[in-house]
Amino acid sequence: MSASLSRPARVGVWLVGARGSVATTVVAGCAAVTAGLRPPTGLVTETPAFADAGLPDLASLVFGGHDTTDCPLPKRAEHLAAGGVLPPGLPAAVAAELAAADREIRPGGPLPGDTRDEGELITAFAADIQDFVRRHGLERAVVVNVASTEPAPTGPGLPPSSLYAAAALRAGCPYVNFTPSTGLHHPDLAPLAAGGGLPYAGRDGKTGQTLLRSVLGPMFTQRALAVRAWSGTNLLGGGDGASLADPAAAAAKNAGKERVLADTLGSAPEGEVHIDDVPALGDWKTAWDHIAFDGFLGTRMILQTIWQGCDSALAAPLVLDLARLVARAHETGLAGPLSELAFFFKDPVGEAPSALAEQYAELVRFARRLGEGA
Amino acid sequence: MSASLSRPARVGVWLVGARGSVATTVVAGCAAVTAGLRPPTGLVTETPAFADAGLPDLASLVFGGHDTTDCPLPKRAEHLAAGGVLPPGLPAAVAAELAAADREIRPGGPLPGDTRDEGELITAFAADIQDFVRRHGLERAVVVNVASTEPAPTGPGLPPSSLYAAAALRAGCPYVNFTPSTGLHHPDLAPLAAGGGLPYAGRDGKTGQTLLRSVLGPMFTQRALAVRAWSGTNLLGGGDGASLADPAAAAAKNAGKERVLADTLGSAPEGEVHIDDVPALGDWKTAWDHIAFDGFLGTRMILQTIWQGCDSALAAPLVLDLARLVARAHETGLAGPLSELAFFFKDPVGEAPSALAEQYAELVRFARRLGEGA
Amino acid sequence: MSASLSRPARVGVWLVGARGSVATTVVAGCAAVTAGLRPPTGLVTETPAFADAGLPDLASLVFGGHDTTDCPLPKRAEHLAAGGVLPPGLPAAVAAELAAADREIRPGGPLPGDTRDEGELITAFAADIQDFVRRHGLERAVVVNVASTEPAPTGPGLPPSSLYAAAALRAGCPYVNFTPSTGLHHPDLAPLAAGGGLPYAGRDGKTGQTLLRSVLGPMFTQRALAVRAWSGTNLLGGGDGASLADPAAAAAKNAGKERVLADTLGSAPEGEVHIDDVPALGDWKTAWDHIAFDGFLGTRMILQTIWQGCDSALAAPLVLDLARLVARAHETGLAGPLSELAFFFKDPVGEAPSALAEQYAELVRFARRLGEGA
Amino acid sequence: MSASLSRPARVGVWLVGARGSVATTVVAGCAAVTAGLRPPTGLVTETPAFADAGLPDLASLVFGGHDTTDCPLPKRAEHLAAGGVLPPGLPAAVAAELAAADREIRPGGPLPGDTRDEGELITAFAADIQDFVRRHGLERAVVVNVASTEPAPTGPGLPPSSLYAAAALRAGCPYVNFTPSTGLHHPDLAPLAAGGGLPYAGRDGKTGQTLLRSVLGPMFTQRALAVRAWSGTNLLGGGDGASLADPAAAAAKNAGKERVLADTLGSAPEGEVHIDDVPALGDWKTAWDHIAFDGFLGTRMILQTIWQGCDSALAAPLVLDLARLVARAHETGLAGPLSELAFFFKDPVGEAPSALAEQYAELVRFARRLGEGA
Repeated sequence: MSASLSRPARVGVWLVGARGSVATTVVAGCAAVTAGLRPPTGLVTETPAFADAGLPDLASLVFGGHDTTDCPLPKRAEHLAAGGVLPPGLPAAVAAELAAADREIRPGGPLPGDTRDEGELITAFAADIQDFVRRHGLERAVVVNVASTEPAPTGPGLPPSSLYAAAALRAGCPYVNFTPSTGLHHPDLAPLAAGGGLPYAGRDGKTGQTLLRSVLGPMFTQRALAVRAWSGTNLLGGGDGASLADPAAAAAKNAGKERVLADTLGSAPEGEVHIDDVPALGDWKTAWDHIAFDGFLGTRMILQTIWQGCDSALAAPLVLDLARLVARAHETGLAGPLSELAFFFKDPVGEAPSALAEQYAELVRFARRLGEGA
Repeated sequence: MSASLSRPARVGVWLVGARGSVATTVVAGCAAVTAGLRPPTGLVTETPAFADAGLPDLASLVFGGHDTTDCPLPKRAEHLAAGGVLPPGLPAAVAAELAAADREIRPGGPLPGDTRDEGELITAFAADIQDFVRRHGLERAVVVNVASTEPAPTGPGLPPSSLYAAAALRAGCPYVNFTPSTGLHHPDLAPLAAGGGLPYAGRDGKTGQTLLRSVLGPMFTQRALAVRAWSGTNLLGGGDGASLADPAAAAAKNAGKERVLADTLGSAPEGEVHIDDVPALGDWKTAWDHIAFDGFLGTRMILQTIWQGCDSALAAPLVLDLARLVARAHETGLAGPLSELAFFFKDPVGEAPSALAEQYAELVRFARRLGEGA
Repeated sequence: MSASLSRPARVGVWLVGARGSVATTVVAGCAAVTAGLRPPTGLVTETPAFADAGLPDLASLVFGGHDTTDCPLPKRAEHLAAGGVLPPGLPAAVAAELAAADREIRPGGPLPGDTRDEGELITAFAADIQDFVRRHGLERAVVVNVASTEPAPTGPGLPPSSLYAAAALRAGCPYVNFTPSTGLHHPDLAPLAAGGGLPYAGRDGKTGQTLLRSVLGPMFTQRALAVRAWSGTNLLGGGDGASLADPAAAAAKNAGKERVLADTLGSAPEGEVHIDDVPALGDWKTAWDHIAFDGFLGTRMILQTIWQGCDSALAAPLVLDLARLVARAHETGLAGPLSELAFFFKDPVGEAPSALAEQYAELVRFARRLGEGA
Repeated sequence: MSASLSRPARVGVWLVGARGSVATTVVAGCAAVTAGLRPPTGLVTETPAFADAGLPDLASLVFGGHDTTDCPLPKRAEHLAAGGVLPPGLPAAVAAELAAADREIRPGGPLPGDTRDEGELITAFAADIQDFVRRHGLERAVVVNVASTEPAPTGPGLPPSSLYAAAALRAGCPYVNFTPSTGLHHPDLAPLAAGGGLPYAGRDGKTGQTLLRSVLGPMFTQRALAVRAWSGTNLLGGGDGASLADPAAAAAKNAGKERVLADTLGSAPEGEVHIDDVPALGDWKTAWDHIAFDGFLGTRMILQTIWQGCDSALAAPLVLDLARLVARAHETGLAGPLSELAFFFKDPVGEAPSALAEQYAELVRFARRLGEGA
């Protein structure tokens, strides 16, 4: 480690979509846990299996990012507290950390009327990131995409998520795509991803329905029960609800969900997945799954699950986990797709198992390797 | 193998509770799958991972057992078909096999007015089993308890399930306890179990709510989510519904259910489990689980599951799986508690993991050892 | 009444879609209840409130109809019994009645390659119905549309359901539209409906999700609870599942569902309704509803309902109820839209309340009027 | 009306259990709605049907009560806001009204070591109420029991809820029992209730599972569907969770729930009701109902409902509704059991219908009578 004796190395977390609900919860939550105001519930990397992996401390993380909106983080946090996403009183308790992160947010793009071409945007974004690293004297920074899901690209050229991904690599930073947007999965970026010497991970954080499917699918298979149809409906009200009500945006997300079933069941069952925008639910989401399966002698049986969670509170600790793990992977010299992080994603990069238990076992082995310097 | 060239070795399955729904489904189902009338859905031992374990063929199994009631198996099967448990037409298609098994059912006990003491009952039961093995020239027989759950014993002396367990060992047969009844778990039988040189397994087949808990519990733990309360209600209408409405009988079953949670979550959460007798449901059962958990920063979230299954159809293939695995274990010379079969049980013998994925991995390793002659 | 002393008047029930699941269940069920093989569960008109309404006896009903498929009713009934829709054994017990109805089924249309124009088809269908009435010496016949939902008509001309509706009136028969198809709701048929001097009723039988909504909507309103969002998903596997997976066909059905909410809540809440075709479910359907509502001081609360029913078994008794009520209305000289039958429909004709309790009260008053000769 | 021109008549609401969650929500909510901070969601008496009933304004209500605990109302309100029961910020906004009500709370009893006999307690309680009326110059006061459910009385003598009820009548005040506790339903109080010349209402507010049952039960009956089993589980965490986990206390509550089913279905179906204390849920409650019913030809179908609500927020507006209605009934000279208020109760006094729709119609008629001076 290159850190001086007097002060631990500090690691940057550069959030694309830095004024959104997830990003706000990441910054506020990291501060709250660091200060001991809240226990580290939901943080996988704070469990004993990760104690010796050499991960950067939560206290060493410094936040910044890009966004195209203006609402300051402290105000955003107040909205989240009013909606029950953050505990009442927390925004005030971590106001300084929110304000500090807010000062490090730079305008994203392309904005309406933006005359910059793709290359200029990438250059500008990369400069923002490098400036952030330099000014704070950071040992390294990880770029994490937590912006609203963008529609699947239809025309030529790079979608915004890919511009940010390219900028991350240009700036020498590992990249994590927590959304179903394209990011590094664009054919034009394949050479950059392959040759950049940087680790990357993604995509689409597994926070609810798909998390459940990744444990229930294997259960049916191990018990030799024949799943006939797996149907699901998601109701969600935050920004993602509006984005994903667009069928084009939902398509990428649903592909990830269905991959989990096809992989764990051996073949894709009947059934559809709906994503409804229900603004009345605010940041809360409900996922109903209906699984029709055959038992012995063809007896028809049914399992239903109802998952009611807060999207930001489910996503934020995983973002912190990923930032720490990927930063450490970078430190140990790893490069390329980190399939060992499949535990966190609907549609993981590289070759990875789809069953959560196997993904977890692989993650714990990975943590051990990180602890040994990988 | 000692089988002659012309005819494969035959293996006995001696069912305690041989006229019940589970036993009837075991016999009818084994015949239906063997005859190719139905696919082997639900039979774990018919999946590729068990192909080389040296298990006895389904076609080689011969059924008999003890029961205290009179209803002939063919008639019982008709009742089950009327209730939707067996496919319409199946009882007629396998009438010969049902009649053959019915001829091998001997009166159990103690019956009301029975003057035999414990020793005499054990001797009589063991003689029945040995007679069955001898008359059919069986290579071996496995005794499986599938009788209705008995009340937790209160006084001195052995409860019926323990008399049958003792008889199994006396007859030189491996023993499987698919119910929460005492069976071999009686202190008076400990020396017999330890010194008998026979393998045994149990107890309480994991067919619904607890199966789910054994995959959901680990999910919460791996994601560092804090389960605050796990509450459940079971509605069931068959014989087990009536037995388990007795709080004393339910106590043993619930202990197994709670052990799974305490083991996989690290500590027992708040919450109760109810078992209601609802005769209108017939052989069908519904299990509702409500899990209140904390996410990041203490955000309160909820998962609910509803499992609607047919008890006999869930249990029967596991009974066949267990009979085959334990018979093969006996053949390879294994003795004592088979903790490797924890995959099948709520409250497994020996030291075993509680998470289904780990239990499955252990089971597959066990199958490999069996294939190598253990 | 014109019935002779020796033999009660007989009433025809002419089913459009006479070989479908609903029609088969109507014929088999009427026979089973008439013969005392089954209790009259689900038959509203067999309850005491309808005893004095002068309705034709179930035993007096004679069945016929149109269909474009060939499968004979007795065979169709066997399929339904195999799928659990009819009790095992019932098709055999009522084979004679099924065969008799099957002989009265005439080819529908237009069939592929049909060269008849609209007028010729209407004439042909009306002749079939009149021939049925004449040959059986029926006092009257009611035409009921129970065919699969057709797509909303897009071009000029009458859709098939409207051809049958026109034929019914032409033949002098009252008409009931149990589906969301157009039927008499076509502008070209308005003069016929208005001037025909015949009673008619519809449309779209209320058998599950909308039935529930018509009691839950009023509950929220009466308690002054503010429904924010009402979302629903229907999974169904029979013919209707396939028809309604077509968004054009679903549109009419959903309009009826939403009308109930808007009427009972005062305004339409947020939320969508999905109808998924899940062939694995066969004739069974599952409807999940998620209702987000505000309580006192804006506290957010949720009600969820899960309805698991058999579509044909839900629809068939209502078809019998409607045939009897409309036949009696015809007998008493009533004409025009029977809004008093709103109890049975998602999208009732005429002006009618939307709350089930008010619809029931109106239905009972209507029965009293029928009993008094209307 | 005796009110002066310059100031409207003021009406007292004396709450037994005045420091509990329900009472705190009543006081805070009344102030919030009066001040226009929140809409009157959940207040039945603020809907148009009650506009001309002559009810006292919300602004005219003055609160006081008895309690055996010390926690001041403003502090209690802060706890409720932290738990999401009251909106954040509301306790501060209505701090003056909470403090004013807090000053009017007198010690209840009997406290441990209390040497007063029943007569002395009644006298003391009645004096507290009369003093409250006198000091505030109230036109009248209504006593409402919102204390935690007490165990069913076993020995001789009056339980505490009956002491308060007797004190109310002694003080010349109408009485409302919002809980399943005994209250006026004690044989020793029958002469007092009958001869007191005061109106009274109760018992056990219908806020969740039973509310649903009172609309679903009639639906099944009206559709002639045969309910075979109706099972339910309630999870609740507040004070009532702990009280009702006591089987003796639960017995009274369950009697009310079952009466609704027996009355609306015609006979009591199979099935049990469980009430579990789950402290992790705080003031939130979840009720799961599973209804197994037969459709046409005995086809088995299932409806399940899940109700997730906040107990205090469900109860509080009904308490305000009842106080206003009963105060007005008193003003118009009505006396004895007010069966017209059955809409609000699980186990209503007097002869009343059990179906919610009929109860609502009766309530609206009652409001009309009140408007006409009854």
